[in-house]
Amino acid sequence: MKTMTPADRPFTLLDVLAAPEGATVSFHGMAHAVRDLGDVCFVLLRTAQGALQCVVCPPLTPPRPGDALRVQGTVCRDARAPGGVELRLSALQVLTSPEAPMPAPIDKFRMRLSQDTDLALRPVTLRNLQKRAVFKVQEGVVRGFRECLQDEGFTEIHTPKLGANTAEGGANVFRLDYFGRRAALAQSPQFYKQTMVGVFERVFEVGPVFRAEKHNTARHLNEYTSLDLEMGFIDSFEDVMRMEVKVLARIMEVLRRDYAPQLQALDVRLPACDAIPAVRFDEAKRMAAERYGRPIRDPFDLEPEEEQLISRLFEEEYGSQFVFVTHYPSKKRPFYAKDDPADPRYTLSFDLLLRGMEITTGGERISGYSEQVEKMRRKGLDPADFGSYLMIHRHGMPPHGGLGIGLERLTARLVGAQNVREACLFPRDTLRLDP
Amino acid sequence: MKTMTPADRPFTLLDVLAAPEGATVSFHGMAHAVRDLGDVCFVLLRTAQGALQCVVCPPLTPPRPGDALRVQGTVCRDARAPGGVELRLSALQVLTSPEAPMPAPIDKFRMRLSQDTDLALRPVTLRNLQKRAVFKVQEGVVRGFRECLQDEGFTEIHTPKLGANTAEGGANVFRLDYFGRRAALAQSPQFYKQTMVGVFERVFEVGPVFRAEKHNTARHLNEYTSLDLEMGFIDSFEDVMRMEVKVLARIMEVLRRDYAPQLQALDVRLPACDAIPAVRFDEAKRMAAERYGRPIRDPFDLEPEEEQLISRLFEEEYGSQFVFVTHYPSKKRPFYAKDDPADPRYTLSFDLLLRGMEITTGGERISGYSEQVEKMRRKGLDPADFGSYLMIHRHGMPPHGGLGIGLERLTARLVGAQNVREACLFPRDTLRLDP
Repeated sequence: MKTMTPADRPFTLLDVLAAPEGATVSFHGMAHAVRDLGDVCFVLLRTAQGALQCVVCPPLTPPRPGDALRVQGTVCRDARAPGGVELRLSALQVLTSPEAPMPAPIDKFRMRLSQDTDLALRPVTLRNLQKRAVFKVQEGVVRGFRECLQDEGFTEIHTPKLGANTAEGGANVFRLDYFGRRAALAQSPQFYKQTMVGVFERVFEVGPVFRAEKHNTARHLNEYTSLDLEMGFIDSFEDVMRMEVKVLARIMEVLRRDYAPQLQALDVRLPACDAIPAVRFDEAKRMAAERYGRPIRDPFDLEPEEEQLISRLFEEEYGSQFVFVTHYPSKKRPFYAKDDPADPRYTLSFDLLLRGMEITTGGERISGYSEQVEKMRRKGLDPADFGSYLMIHRHGMPPHGGLGIGLERLTARLVGAQNVREACLFPRDTLRLDP
Repeated sequence: MKTMTPADRPFTLLDVLAAPEGATVSFHGMAHAVRDLGDVCFVLLRTAQGALQCVVCPPLTPPRPGDALRVQGTVCRDARAPGGVELRLSALQVLTSPEAPMPAPIDKFRMRLSQDTDLALRPVTLRNLQKRAVFKVQEGVVRGFRECLQDEGFTEIHTPKLGANTAEGGANVFRLDYFGRRAALAQSPQFYKQTMVGVFERVFEVGPVFRAEKHNTARHLNEYTSLDLEMGFIDSFEDVMRMEVKVLARIMEVLRRDYAPQLQALDVRLPACDAIPAVRFDEAKRMAAERYGRPIRDPFDLEPEEEQLISRLFEEEYGSQFVFVTHYPSKKRPFYAKDDPADPRYTLSFDLLLRGMEITTGGERISGYSEQVEKMRRKGLDPADFGSYLMIHRHGMPPHGGLGIGLERLTARLVGAQNVREACLFPRDTLRLDP
C-alpha cells in the first residue's frame, strides 16, 4: 500500500524569471516556435504562464514545433527575450512529438486565418499566444466578479440547467426529451436566483445559459456564460446598478494587478468605471436621434445601431465608455420585471452598454404575489404554469433585483474583439456544434 | 442624467454582533420564527449570514412569519441568543408580507418532511437554517477547490455543454435537436479540458454535467456539478492524486476557517486528508472479500457495497476515511484512459472513496495519436467520429491526466447526508424536473 501526500508546489515560469543570473534550472513546456540558425537554435517554450526563450546549441539537437520538452539550462538576462530572460540549455528531453505539423501558424503574432478556418481548428489555434491571452483576461473578469460579490456577502449557488419551464419563454428555447417528458434548457437562472434570494438574501452564479436564437450575428452565441447576481432588501433598482459599478471596479482592479502581461500583449486599455452615467431609455433614444439624425423606428427597444450611437454620444459628451440605459418599456421586458409605479408603461430596469454594445440586463423584480400573478395574466401567461416559481412570492420575498452579464460580450468589448466568438473558447452558433 | 457610483459596503450581521453593548443599529432580514408571549415577542431574523434574535415589545406590533423587515434596535449581549447578541427593537417596518402561511415548519431545527414533500417545496424548505447551511458548506468546497488550483497555476475555463459528441458515450446521453442536427448534452468536459491542457498546461472547470441514467438511487443525479481539473507534464497518474490531496487539504482549511458556524450547526467532523492510502483495485477487492466474507461477483468494477466495505476496512485498519483505489480494469474505463504498460489489462487510473462512496474518478490520459486511435478501434469506436478531439493528439500533447469530483457527492459525504439530493439545491432525477 502506498500513501499519497500533497503535491509539491510546481516550479513555474515566475521562478525561472526570478532566478539569479547563471543559475541552473529545470523546466518544461511545449516547443512553440523554433528558429534554427544552424549553429544556434532559438526555441520559444510555451508554458502555463507565458513564453520562455531557450537557446539550443550543438551537441543538443533542436526540437520540432509541437514537441513536449523537459529542459535544463542556465539563466541569462537578455533584454531581447520575452520577460528579459533566456535559458541556455545544457539538456533537452523530448517527451512527446506531434504526429503531423501544425495546421496553422500558431507561432505568429497574428495568424490571419478566416474565422471559419480558425473556429474549425480551435483545439490547435487556441495555442497561439495572442488567442490564449484573451481567455486569461476572461479568467480575470470572472475572478473579479466572484471576489467582489464574496466580499459583499453574496453566496455562490449552482442551479439546474434542465427544467420543465424557462424564465423568458418564447421561441428561443432548446427543448429535449427527459425520460418521456418535455424539458427545456435554461435561458437564464432567473427563477432560481430569485428563489435563492428568499434563502440567502444575496446570491450569484457563474454558469452556462442556452438561447436557441436562429440568427448568426457577431454579437450572439447559442450557448454562453452568464454572470448572474440577485440581491434582496434593495431600496431601488439603482442599488443593483451601484453593485454593478462596484463589481466592474473590482474586475478592472484584478485585471490591472494580475493580468498586466495579457493586457499589454492585446494592447488593451481598460475603460474607467468609477462613475457611470445613467439615462432613461426614451431620453437616450431621443438624444441619439437628434444628434446623429437617425429616425426612431422601434419605440419599444434599442436597435444595435442605436446602442452604438448612444455609447458614442456618452463617450463624446461625458468621456464614459459605459452608460446605463434605464426604464425600458414594459412591453419589451419579461413578466417578472417590476413596473414603475410612477408610469407603469415603463419598468424599473436597466441595460448597461459598453463601447456600443449591451453587456448587462437587470432591474427590480416583482416581489408581491398578486402583483406577479396579475402581470403574468396581462402578458397572456397562465400562472398555473409557474407554480414552483410563484411559491416564493406566495410565502414571502423581500424587495429584490439583480442582473446578468454576458461574459463573452464583456470580454470581447474589453479586448477589442469585433466578434463575440473571439471571446468564447468553442463557440456554439447555428452552424457550429463542434469542436 | 444621473451618475452611478459604487455601492457602499452593506451593514452585515457580523457588524451587529461586533457592535458595542447599548449601540443603536438598523438592520434587515426575514421574520424566520416568531414566538409571541403576549407582553414580549421574540423574532428570529433570517439574514444573509445567519440568524439574529430580536425582542419586540408594545407599542410595536409583532410581525408575522415570512415578513420582510427593516428594524432598528439596541444591541444587548445575551448568552442565550444565537451569536450571543439580541436586538431590542425600537422600530420595526414590514416591507412585504407573505400571501399565505409557510407550507412547512421551516423555523424548526428538523422539519421531518418526507423527501418527496421536501423536494416539492424546495423553494421554501431551503429557507430552513439547517438546510441552507449545507449549501454554505458546498460554497466552501468550491472556493477551496478554486483557490488551491489558482495558486497552483491552473487556468479556469468555460467549455460548451452542447456538442456533437460526448466523452463517455453510451446510453446515458441526453440528446436534442439543434437547428435540425442531433446534439448531445455534455456528460463531462473531458475532451475540452484535455484540449485546453495543450493551451494552458493546467486547467480547471466548475460546471454542470448531464447523465441520462435511468435508475433513481441515493447516489445518482441526472444533472450535477462537476469539479474538473486536468494537468500536463505529469510523471505519473500519481501526480494527479497528489494534486487532489492538496486540493482536499485546502477545502478543509477553507471550511474550518470560514464556515465554522455551519459545520457546528450540522455537527460535521471533517475527515483528515494529509496522507491518503492508495490500494490497487484487485487488492482492494480481495481484501474486502476476505475480511468481510463477501464473494467477488464482478471482477471488473466495484459494486456500491464493495466501496462501502473497502472504506470501512481502511478506516478500521489505517484510520483514514479517504482511500484511493488505483489500476481499474481497462475493460471498464473509457477509451481515453492510458493502459498500464506493465499490464495493459489495467489502466493508470484511480477513484477516490470517502466514507463508503466514490467521489472522484481520474487518471492519466493517452497523449499519443496512434496509441489513442488504436485504443478507440479496440473499443469498437470509429476514430473518424472524433476528428476534433484527435486534432490535439495529432498536433502534440504533453503527458497529462486529470480528475472529476462530484460536488454534490462530496458535500453529502462531508455533511453526513444519506442522499445526494440533500446536497443539491434543485435535484434532477428521473421523476423531477421541477422545481
